[in-house]
Amino acid sequence: MELLKIIDIAGIAVFSISGVFAAMEKKLDVFGVFIIAFITALGGGTLRDVLIGQLPVSWMYNLNYGLIVLLSTLAAMFFSNIIGNYQKTLLTFDSLGLGLFTVVGIQKGILLDFHPAVCIALGTITACFGGVIRDI
Amino acid sequence: MELLKIIDIAGIAVFSISGVFAAMEKKLDVFGVFIIAFITALGGGTLRDVLIGQLPVSWMYNLNYGLIVLLSTLAAMFFSNIIGNYQKTLLTFDSLGLGLFTVVGIQKGILLDFHPAVCIALGTITACFGGVIRDI
Amino acid sequence: MELLKIIDIAGIAVFSISGVFAAMEKKLDVFGVFIIAFITALGGGTLRDVLIGQLPVSWMYNLNYGLIVLLSTLAAMFFSNIIGNYQKTLLTFDSLGLGLFTVVGIQKGILLDFHPAVCIALGTITACFGGVIRDI
Repeated sequence: MELLKIIDIAGIAVFSISGVFAAMEKKLDVFGVFIIAFITALGGGTLRDVLIGQLPVSWMYNLNYGLIVLLSTLAAMFFSNIIGNYQKTLLTFDSLGLGLFTVVGIQKGILLDFHPAVCIALGTITACFGGVIRDI
Repeated sequence: MELLKIIDIAGIAVFSISGVFAAMEKKLDVFGVFIIAFITALGGGTLRDVLIGQLPVSWMYNLNYGLIVLLSTLAAMFFSNIIGNYQKTLLTFDSLGLGLFTVVGIQKGILLDFHPAVCIALGTITACFGGVIRDI
Repeated sequence: MELLKIIDIAGIAVFSISGVFAAMEKKLDVFGVFIIAFITALGGGTLRDVLIGQLPVSWMYNLNYGLIVLLSTLAAMFFSNIIGNYQKTLLTFDSLGLGLFTVVGIQKGILLDFHPAVCIALGTITACFGGVIRDI
């Protein structure tokens, strides 16, 4: 359980950073960057929680989720001047996040005793949905 | 509580009208215009209710919501010939709706004892989501 | 009730097939085709179940839904070489699915004692939402 939490936090941080770079490529302002980071990092998990009926969704009563997004966003914006190559960094963090969130989603499904095929679907939803919304 | 209801109704009416003008710019038929008005006016509140777990969503058991959208749509379509400047009217009503719905969303969060930061998120979701879906 | 189940299954199969042809027009790979078929077939019903608060959504504990999508997808991909005219086939199956799912959505609303106008809204959501997501 502890390991799962660390993976979840790492996934949120990594996806926030990928959201920041996607938003900075579009030249959004600071507030827009944070919104995109938030949606990218927590969108997949939110859809998953809605579908399995765990409401209200976790970031509403546990503020740490929002805090992780905020800190990751600030760090990513701070370092963005040094990094420069947005496209490549975005891809790296996106791939990392996909892997981490797939694990989290599948594990959630297993804890709720769903069929393995449904667990894979949950992993896919958790991992992909944030990125899909970000791209829209 | 009574004031909140009036703000909610005003927000729904104002967003319906903004939906009507957005749909008429795209030259949709009457049915399409109503659908867009409905989504614009009730989309944000629906997402908010889903996320906080107040299901079924309120417009399903309280028909007044749909009625307000219907009346606002008819009024907006009736007056659209007189107004003419769609783009400007759309912007005016959109801004009004954003303000009104942000208040409603934040108030809902306060009533449910969420943290202030989450209340602001709820206000933003209520206000912005309808317009985002309309633009898609 | 039995008739409703048959209509539901037929609708899922028909929408899966329409999803397959839409995905093949975009030259997606086999995995992408299945995802699009799944979303097209089950997206509308999923949104309906979320809005009325029937969670977790039905395809999570009843694997038959996923199985119908899988079989329909395989069959559609197998026959796609023979059929050839993607656009026309897509339209045919889409229309069939719209009719079938509208019936299912309205029936669900009636079973839950909603007002007729809300039932029509539920029918529309069930029928249209999968196709809207597919087109995005």
